[in-house]
Amino acid sequence: MRLGILGGGQLGRMLALAAHALGLEPLAYDPSPEACAGDVARLVTGAFDDTRALQKFASEVDALTYEFENIDAALLDDLGERGVPFDPSPRFLARSQDRLEEKRALVELGVPVTPHRPVSSRAELEEAFDALGGAIVLKTRRLGYDGRGQIRIESRAALDDAWARLGSRPLIAEVLVPFRTEVSLVATRGRDGRMVFYPLTENRHRHGILRLSRAPVADPALEALAPIAEDYLRRIAEHYGYVGTLTVEFFVDPDGRLVANETAPRVHNSGHWTIDGAKTSQFANHVRALAGYPLGPSRPHGHTAMVNCVGALPDPRAVLALPGAQLHDYRKAPRPGRKVGHVTLVGESPFDPEADPLKTLLRLAPFRVD
Amino acid sequence: MRLGILGGGQLGRMLALAAHALGLEPLAYDPSPEACAGDVARLVTGAFDDTRALQKFASEVDALTYEFENIDAALLDDLGERGVPFDPSPRFLARSQDRLEEKRALVELGVPVTPHRPVSSRAELEEAFDALGGAIVLKTRRLGYDGRGQIRIESRAALDDAWARLGSRPLIAEVLVPFRTEVSLVATRGRDGRMVFYPLTENRHRHGILRLSRAPVADPALEALAPIAEDYLRRIAEHYGYVGTLTVEFFVDPDGRLVANETAPRVHNSGHWTIDGAKTSQFANHVRALAGYPLGPSRPHGHTAMVNCVGALPDPRAVLALPGAQLHDYRKAPRPGRKVGHVTLVGESPFDPEADPLKTLLRLAPFRVD
Repeated sequence: MRLGILGGGQLGRMLALAAHALGLEPLAYDPSPEACAGDVARLVTGAFDDTRALQKFASEVDALTYEFENIDAALLDDLGERGVPFDPSPRFLARSQDRLEEKRALVELGVPVTPHRPVSSRAELEEAFDALGGAIVLKTRRLGYDGRGQIRIESRAALDDAWARLGSRPLIAEVLVPFRTEVSLVATRGRDGRMVFYPLTENRHRHGILRLSRAPVADPALEALAPIAEDYLRRIAEHYGYVGTLTVEFFVDPDGRLVANETAPRVHNSGHWTIDGAKTSQFANHVRALAGYPLGPSRPHGHTAMVNCVGALPDPRAVLALPGAQLHDYRKAPRPGRKVGHVTLVGESPFDPEADPLKTLLRLAPFRVD
Repeated sequence: MRLGILGGGQLGRMLALAAHALGLEPLAYDPSPEACAGDVARLVTGAFDDTRALQKFASEVDALTYEFENIDAALLDDLGERGVPFDPSPRFLARSQDRLEEKRALVELGVPVTPHRPVSSRAELEEAFDALGGAIVLKTRRLGYDGRGQIRIESRAALDDAWARLGSRPLIAEVLVPFRTEVSLVATRGRDGRMVFYPLTENRHRHGILRLSRAPVADPALEALAPIAEDYLRRIAEHYGYVGTLTVEFFVDPDGRLVANETAPRVHNSGHWTIDGAKTSQFANHVRALAGYPLGPSRPHGHTAMVNCVGALPDPRAVLALPGAQLHDYRKAPRPGRKVGHVTLVGESPFDPEADPLKTLLRLAPFRVD
């Protein structure tokens, strides 16, 4: 069975590795001949807006998925109608690509989101700033990731500059949530409708880029939120007839309630720990779902911490000397702000960022954004 | 770092997958352009006796290993002297390639082996048969695997036929051990001399081909043998300055003692369960050793059973529906007697071949030898 993956980055690379174990043949489609999935999948180069090249690619595979969300959804919809199973549903992707539509869709399904307002003029920006309490995050509705295309605004004086930088595009203003922490839930839904849920994962970002994930959450108050988050993901997945791995990032607000921040219709960085830390990885389960196979168990092996390497890799000898450490090098050219690998620690008890070995790992793993 | 692997079978394939995760670039050398490691490694085709092609291959990599033992050791020794680190030691390989030399080497290191005698004539065969008690296994000294090149002889009348079939080659007669069970120990030694030991694994063969491995051994009497086996492997590894993964198969004799049956200077089929069932797989640790990285923990995730698929693959939907099952399809053309994949079950307690899910897996996983 040939599995086509639109996008050849590290997510495509890790999907391809999971596909090989199961005996599937992965093909990756990417504009760059240097795409890192090319080490482990047959790489087909083409632009993401080249309809003919995409159609040709789709015609050569038995199932199609994507690891890269910023592809025109109408084009994907067209691919999906050509008879090749294409998951997760382009219909879901279309809504999740637009932050405003994404929030509306969540509200329709009863999933709490942060108060927000669409912004399409300088006047609307000011209105939103006032209505949302004078502390907002202004975001482009489309094409943002890893903190790009968003600005925090906490004073009226900052509105002009923000408008000058982002005002040319459709925007959304969201309340700047004074959140207690951030968590995410990764789940996979099979073609038969069955779902597996990974443990709730606690995340820390730096400069809008994920730095640290720990799973399962150690705080019982957070652990108690897992069934609620599962209920939300189930509603979303069932509504869209979703097949594959799905992620929702949540804030935990000061009252300890979950507020959905972002959805990702794919394997997710906050689920990378599952390669070493769960019985079946998010990648293996995504591949199983696409192939129509039964899903594997998502139970964790003890506790895991995952640290992203941003901008550069650490010395493998140093990080692998840490107890329970596993290194994943994506073989991408180092560049500030770029995720080039991750390191996981797997152990019997929760990892504390202020204590070893996680403390040392956070020191060893580069985080270079400029 | 480029890692060259001599041999492009399933062991090379699984080594290559482990190498990719660590960011190494695997290259496989094999006579066949269809070699299954070619899906995940750059495949260089060449004969195993083509000195120039092997030298060229060695010159293109930073470290060299082998997954296929039946290569002329003198030729490998020559490769190893050309400056590229070549592990495990060709010196060890040279001795393990010859069953008589292998046993002598073990005896020198104080590792118990089965009573045996070299056989180079029909008269010597009869003498050996008598001296060893009238129940022997006659084996070719070289190039045997998966039960090929060996014949059980339990009556004088069978000697003529056995001699007719194997007599043209140097032979060894071994006592037919009325063993209680078979176990194996897989260990990895790093370039710094540190060793990690996987749990002792219990194995069942059919027609000389491994069918089932279970780890860790469930019987306390077997578990008590683990430190003894570890001591034996440590002696062997230290004597040869061994770097990489090493396996020794043992019989457990009727008195409950370990008797070494075979050594394998490489990752081993009875260690395949470590991919899903241990914190670091035998493949990842072999790659770490070759790269000079610290080794990862070998602790198991609960209990694992591994069943080989011989001659054909099972229906993925059926086996993956078993709780805790993971499928590994090597993408080899099916052929009687050929290992084409394996399935592991990972759970919290030992697996019983007479009870589900292992009982069903043994029914679903093909075993076709003719």
